[in-house]
Amino acid sequence: MKKIAVFTSGGDAPGMNACIRAIVRGAAYHGVEVYGIVRGYNGMIKGDIIPLNSQSVSNIIQRGGTILKSARSKEFMTSEGRQKAYDQLKEKGIEGLVAIGGNGTFTGAEIFFNEFKIPTVGAPGTIDNDLYGTDYTIGFDTAVNTALDAIDKIRDTADSHDRVFFIEVMGRDSGYIAVQCGIAGGAEALMIPENLTPVDDIVSILNNGFAKQKSSSIVIVAEGDEEGNAQIVAKKIKEKMGNMIDIRVTTLGHIQRGGIPTAYDRILASRLGLGALEGLLRGEKNVMAGVINNQLVYTPFHDTITKKKPVSEDLIRMVDILST
Amino acid sequence: MKKIAVFTSGGDAPGMNACIRAIVRGAAYHGVEVYGIVRGYNGMIKGDIIPLNSQSVSNIIQRGGTILKSARSKEFMTSEGRQKAYDQLKEKGIEGLVAIGGNGTFTGAEIFFNEFKIPTVGAPGTIDNDLYGTDYTIGFDTAVNTALDAIDKIRDTADSHDRVFFIEVMGRDSGYIAVQCGIAGGAEALMIPENLTPVDDIVSILNNGFAKQKSSSIVIVAEGDEEGNAQIVAKKIKEKMGNMIDIRVTTLGHIQRGGIPTAYDRILASRLGLGALEGLLRGEKNVMAGVINNQLVYTPFHDTITKKKPVSEDLIRMVDILST
Amino acid sequence: MKKIAVFTSGGDAPGMNACIRAIVRGAAYHGVEVYGIVRGYNGMIKGDIIPLNSQSVSNIIQRGGTILKSARSKEFMTSEGRQKAYDQLKEKGIEGLVAIGGNGTFTGAEIFFNEFKIPTVGAPGTIDNDLYGTDYTIGFDTAVNTALDAIDKIRDTADSHDRVFFIEVMGRDSGYIAVQCGIAGGAEALMIPENLTPVDDIVSILNNGFAKQKSSSIVIVAEGDEEGNAQIVAKKIKEKMGNMIDIRVTTLGHIQRGGIPTAYDRILASRLGLGALEGLLRGEKNVMAGVINNQLVYTPFHDTITKKKPVSEDLIRMVDILST
Amino acid sequence: MKKIAVFTSGGDAPGMNACIRAIVRGAAYHGVEVYGIVRGYNGMIKGDIIPLNSQSVSNIIQRGGTILKSARSKEFMTSEGRQKAYDQLKEKGIEGLVAIGGNGTFTGAEIFFNEFKIPTVGAPGTIDNDLYGTDYTIGFDTAVNTALDAIDKIRDTADSHDRVFFIEVMGRDSGYIAVQCGIAGGAEALMIPENLTPVDDIVSILNNGFAKQKSSSIVIVAEGDEEGNAQIVAKKIKEKMGNMIDIRVTTLGHIQRGGIPTAYDRILASRLGLGALEGLLRGEKNVMAGVINNQLVYTPFHDTITKKKPVSEDLIRMVDILST
Repeated sequence: MKKIAVFTSGGDAPGMNACIRAIVRGAAYHGVEVYGIVRGYNGMIKGDIIPLNSQSVSNIIQRGGTILKSARSKEFMTSEGRQKAYDQLKEKGIEGLVAIGGNGTFTGAEIFFNEFKIPTVGAPGTIDNDLYGTDYTIGFDTAVNTALDAIDKIRDTADSHDRVFFIEVMGRDSGYIAVQCGIAGGAEALMIPENLTPVDDIVSILNNGFAKQKSSSIVIVAEGDEEGNAQIVAKKIKEKMGNMIDIRVTTLGHIQRGGIPTAYDRILASRLGLGALEGLLRGEKNVMAGVINNQLVYTPFHDTITKKKPVSEDLIRMVDILST
Repeated sequence: MKKIAVFTSGGDAPGMNACIRAIVRGAAYHGVEVYGIVRGYNGMIKGDIIPLNSQSVSNIIQRGGTILKSARSKEFMTSEGRQKAYDQLKEKGIEGLVAIGGNGTFTGAEIFFNEFKIPTVGAPGTIDNDLYGTDYTIGFDTAVNTALDAIDKIRDTADSHDRVFFIEVMGRDSGYIAVQCGIAGGAEALMIPENLTPVDDIVSILNNGFAKQKSSSIVIVAEGDEEGNAQIVAKKIKEKMGNMIDIRVTTLGHIQRGGIPTAYDRILASRLGLGALEGLLRGEKNVMAGVINNQLVYTPFHDTITKKKPVSEDLIRMVDILST
Repeated sequence: MKKIAVFTSGGDAPGMNACIRAIVRGAAYHGVEVYGIVRGYNGMIKGDIIPLNSQSVSNIIQRGGTILKSARSKEFMTSEGRQKAYDQLKEKGIEGLVAIGGNGTFTGAEIFFNEFKIPTVGAPGTIDNDLYGTDYTIGFDTAVNTALDAIDKIRDTADSHDRVFFIEVMGRDSGYIAVQCGIAGGAEALMIPENLTPVDDIVSILNNGFAKQKSSSIVIVAEGDEEGNAQIVAKKIKEKMGNMIDIRVTTLGHIQRGGIPTAYDRILASRLGLGALEGLLRGEKNVMAGVINNQLVYTPFHDTITKKKPVSEDLIRMVDILST
Repeated sequence: MKKIAVFTSGGDAPGMNACIRAIVRGAAYHGVEVYGIVRGYNGMIKGDIIPLNSQSVSNIIQRGGTILKSARSKEFMTSEGRQKAYDQLKEKGIEGLVAIGGNGTFTGAEIFFNEFKIPTVGAPGTIDNDLYGTDYTIGFDTAVNTALDAIDKIRDTADSHDRVFFIEVMGRDSGYIAVQCGIAGGAEALMIPENLTPVDDIVSILNNGFAKQKSSSIVIVAEGDEEGNAQIVAKKIKEKMGNMIDIRVTTLGHIQRGGIPTAYDRILASRLGLGALEGLLRGEKNVMAGVINNQLVYTPFHDTITKKKPVSEDLIRMVDILST
């Protein structure tokens, strides 16, 4: 394999640039020509494909976002779109792909591989950590630390005003960000999609806190919680508890997607980028590179998008014990 | 004056603890006994008043929130409530007060002074910077930097996805936070209460940007804007521009109130705390300490709450020029 | 076991407070009385032992340092000293200990256990990550991120002035912090104790960089490197390269020990604190709790202090490839 | 004036990029062509001069360092060098200059102006805040906050170990950074060049602290202090106090020069950049733009480099009172 291309797709995640850098520098090291596809599958269809070299990725390891940009592509969901994409790659002589992204990215990559057989290896880039086949995804550690920084700030106010704050964090269908924020943020309670917590349980926890003179409390709500998002949950609680408590709601929102990547994310991204590249060069295809128990592993795209990675029961238990 | 008390009231602001520390240490330096009233006017009514000394305020200069806590007090709005408060102070032998807070705090302080003549000097503590009588208030610089940090993160995503972000910042009726965030955050446009910006102007600015291949844009919206908050404004823009743009909205919310105070806020808070204390000891009363053009000044409470401090036209003009 | 005590010893590390909190809350959860020993073995000898409860550890999860303080104790190295310490524990009815610290702490704990048989379980708290029996130690992730933040800042200057910076990071005899900083900081070269890098190799790397028009470079030097610390190494390089390069040296120093713990460190500290406590209650003794491959494990003190945990060769290789 | 150029010179400072951006965008707004000179006077001599437009300065407002790079130029100190520089400017048709830098930059600018009469206006860019003609310089606020963040971290360790830390901050011949860090960092003592503090006074302050059971202390030492730098001062203190205290020394070093600029620095830099540009276009020459008491002012280069801006006595007094 002498010519490959890399692209980012789906929601951006901090560390994607560190991953691109590792792929480009790794390709240079192995004497392989490397191209960047701009705006994911969209750019593939339009042929927006640029040469990259070691210099192109200087001084990007610490930047959030992705220098290759990202976009949704409806056209790639059609077979005409994918044919165009393939034609562009063929014209440029691209023999292999590294795809950085999440669920949607790999769903597209699998279909494309089945149709055109261009070897593709994925690197898991999403803040949600909802991909099977890796302990952690690129961007997750940064997102958790960003959310945590916000929670620390909010606790100052909660504490000064004896308030209860419901803080909604991201994570789509997964409670990973919420659980980590719950433990690290010293939350009194946690509401995540994996584990239905009835509103009544939250009421009990808050009441127990009052009984112990705990004047302020923080409840972390994952955006995908079955009881509804933070605003809705807070409303239900208010209906049940009335004037006893002074409730505020904050939805952390898009700040969780950006920012300077943490050391952990830069190292993980570098390792996964290099792992994806070297896997591709060794003949891996239709798989995602991941790190499980500190070992580099490759998991079929199909499994990464269909299998569910459970949130550790141990961690959920810790929130209960530590808010004692 | 041999015995004074300090309290915080209204919304908490980063630097309030640095201010409390300066008052307590300053009192120790001047040989004056100092008490802390817990939860503002509420604690005054209940007699929740504790002795403070130099040790009590060790290691708090860097903490957000307020160690004396804050609360709304409906009872203090009644003359019975204020009588109780006065009785408590008299019983404890408190001869003077330092009040740290904003509009509401000083409104209460003025009424109380007029009724009971206990000398009171204020220190302006609010992130909104909406008080006449000081260039800046305690907490403003930290709030702006917190919002800016969030804006920097969001720009990573805006840029990666070619999106337009409407970001709502705090400030109540004042556009101070928004203006500073607009300049420092490199925003394309600004919507503040002081300066009606029609939605059509925003549409023009965004269209001009597209014409210049500017793929992402940030619009800062002050929470008090006449055109409605960020969600409403964004909806109006979307109706006018349709599918041309990919809009996202983020309301920064309560993170702007907390956090480690910046150097500027710690120094300003220390200076204002000491200034309020030393003013009180020298005979000032019914006034707020402020810093205007680097000079310590005292302004009657009445003026601080009734006069309007305008946002600098120069700064508003800068947003236009710098987004060229 | 109905009454236990916890203490911190050796250099402080961010996350120690989160660990103390987990032990205290865990003890409350399991109905066990818990005490805190102030200033490590020193406080044990002097009987400086205080009761702790859930409230005592409120709002400390985010604080650097250790609320139980830490100190060196020469007296504990004598058998008279240890006898006094034992007498104090006996008098208070302490039946088990949780020790948070590093090498020196566990060396003392092992001797003490062998003499007096008080069950002791350790939690690894040191920024150096030099303990066998756990993948990571409490404080390591924060120290790496602190060093990385400094490296990012220094790169701004290195880049603006076309300079080469030698940056010395902590880690005692271990290159863990240096390796992670090397990868995450995008360093051109790395000098660590585990892996002798001759000064001539650094000269080659820098010369290669110049040949590729790389105008600035960063070399990370672990404090324990055999070629000497950063100042000495830089001097040797300067002698060999002369006026070709503009070299600066920075020793990051004590900032690496403090600061708000990262999410990773708070969660690891909580998990290890709870793991140490629950191990102790289940009958573990003379062992350190650790996390290897996401599993809680217990390793004899003797092994933790005598066996060497190697730095991953994969990581060292990554620095070479990524600086291509 | 239809064609101007901008350059940065001397030590880099956070906010220089925001200043460049304001000059370039301001020039676009006023319909003036603008060039960037790379590596200061060096690039002027070599003709390393590039066209800039609004797009060139996108997304740099938040970056530390300077995109135009900086360098010392020995050749510019010779009249042959300056003649070459002038020839280059003439050839390119440059009619005016904006110089961003400090003392050395403006010394060069004044000589150059006197010889060749090319109108030049300066913007004060240096972390040291040692320029007469402006209350604050670009980069100062960021440097203080960076140093303060380090001091906060070190206090965690100082407090945990009952230690005295001597922390050396930058500032060349000026104590500005030190004074602000002293107040905001809650230091026990301060040693600055403007105000000789004998070592014996520091000994007294530390002894008084011990008498009040203050177990840890922080002394801020400006790099230019007459009693010698932090290492030397600490040694003298140790000789006088012996084993009574556990002293550590940290020199913060180059981290103070880099990093993401604060809101204050971005706004000040934008204002001064625009002010310098618009001054130049209106006919100002041989002056530096500054902000004094919130007003834009222009001060002759000669005064900015020869007159001394004193550190406020009020601030120095505050360190004493607040460490009570």
